[in-house]
Amino acid sequence: MKVRLAGEIDARWRQELAAALPEARWCDDGDADVAVVANPPPGALAGMPSLALVQSLWAGVDRLLADPTLPPGVPVARMVDPVMNAAMAETASWAVLALHRGFFDYAARQREGLWRPHAQRRADEVPVLVLGRGEMGGTVGARLAALGYRVEHWHRGRELAPLLAAAEIVVNLLPLTPATRDLIDARFLAALPAGASLVNLGRGTHVVEPDLLAALDTGRLHHAVLDVFRQEPLPAGHAFWAHPRVTVLPHAAAATDPRSASRVAAANLRAWRDGRPVAHLVDRGRGY
Amino acid sequence: MKVRLAGEIDARWRQELAAALPEARWCDDGDADVAVVANPPPGALAGMPSLALVQSLWAGVDRLLADPTLPPGVPVARMVDPVMNAAMAETASWAVLALHRGFFDYAARQREGLWRPHAQRRADEVPVLVLGRGEMGGTVGARLAALGYRVEHWHRGRELAPLLAAAEIVVNLLPLTPATRDLIDARFLAALPAGASLVNLGRGTHVVEPDLLAALDTGRLHHAVLDVFRQEPLPAGHAFWAHPRVTVLPHAAAATDPRSASRVAAANLRAWRDGRPVAHLVDRGRGY
Repeated sequence: MKVRLAGEIDARWRQELAAALPEARWCDDGDADVAVVANPPPGALAGMPSLALVQSLWAGVDRLLADPTLPPGVPVARMVDPVMNAAMAETASWAVLALHRGFFDYAARQREGLWRPHAQRRADEVPVLVLGRGEMGGTVGARLAALGYRVEHWHRGRELAPLLAAAEIVVNLLPLTPATRDLIDARFLAALPAGASLVNLGRGTHVVEPDLLAALDTGRLHHAVLDVFRQEPLPAGHAFWAHPRVTVLPHAAAATDPRSASRVAAANLRAWRDGRPVAHLVDRGRGY
Repeated sequence: MKVRLAGEIDARWRQELAAALPEARWCDDGDADVAVVANPPPGALAGMPSLALVQSLWAGVDRLLADPTLPPGVPVARMVDPVMNAAMAETASWAVLALHRGFFDYAARQREGLWRPHAQRRADEVPVLVLGRGEMGGTVGARLAALGYRVEHWHRGRELAPLLAAAEIVVNLLPLTPATRDLIDARFLAALPAGASLVNLGRGTHVVEPDLLAALDTGRLHHAVLDVFRQEPLPAGHAFWAHPRVTVLPHAAAATDPRSASRVAAANLRAWRDGRPVAHLVDRGRGY
């Protein structure tokens, strides 16, 4: 099998991929039949007549699918890395625990030198809404339920408004598609109870940023933990940096782990070579 | 059964206790045969000739046992509240997740306006040492293990130095006794690998505060999450308040919940009345 690498694939990744797939012939030209990609630049996959499979090393394929030169008939597989899912569950657990128990508020009190313990509630008194219930939403929801939280999932086919009205913490793990872009806007935020909080671990373009800032300023939203932004790195001087009730993470909620992801990719490429089903194929119409 | 309440027992507590134990006769004089106490002032239990049981509403009984007027022959029961144990596990999980994934560091970077993602490790690559394996240490250790961490416990009979040398995060949940007072001193901290972190959820007097500050300043200790202090509230101007690598909580890691703790106390008092074994009796020689 002839494999071409394209995109943000550094020496560490190349080493792990080579170790996981020693039988591959790695090539840099258009002759490959499989492409392993990580955010490839637009047009990177044009001019590959034998291309039969595109395996992404990233979980999110929204940028890849937006490339008009992506050959239309070629199947595309997303990365589902158990280590990345576990890392996402860690970040979500940390954020939900901090919001539930008021640890962001205590950090603000510390900066003011104030000793002010507040009331404590049980986890099962805190309703958490997870947007999405795919590989990541499902893993995160299960972990939060194991911590004792009352977890609901929003997914296609469920009405959103009543779920928002009952939620105290919303954790976004949706894929970015035309249907989910700009979902978290003024209307979405107005449907939450006053004092709710948002954890965005999906994509920056899920959020209409001025609407989020307005909801924080009116008090509708108590706190926002944001890992992703419309422009990354978050530009200097952006209002999120200094907002006292915004926690900014540098798109670090969950990295794909080259060790485990290379093994997942290798297993998928071997399945393709041997004519077995390839896992986690993208539905291009749906967008993920 | 005649019950006397002593210490920090407010109207909320009185209401929950009355609901949990409707058959009790509540009295304010020395005539009671059972005392239900929460940090009673020294001498509060003197002059009670019929006193047959002291039930603490607090998990920590170090102040109670230090009262020289506590009648020597009367059994003392600690509070073991499952809601408090769960709250302690939440706080420990939040702190360990934040230390493992660098979320305190990201908060510092946010204050500087810096976007600087760092490398990510798996939970099973992070050794956590829990000091104590009683009701609380055991609950916390099990929760951290469920999150994927490599958990060891230190308890009486195990040698401490090799456990410290292998630990990256130390979580203190020891009871305060003459044997554990001042345990976390310069020698303890020097036995940790460089860059380790401390989470103190036990008692403030477990820690020699100048030694902790020195270890932070030399870099031996990366970060300290402190819920308890030698003087509480932590005095204004104390070096912990403004230290960039100290997280101060206002003794809020885990409160006893009046709803569940009142039911636990009621069950214990009924066991005493009916001649059944009373749970969680303190070994006064051991100090907890």
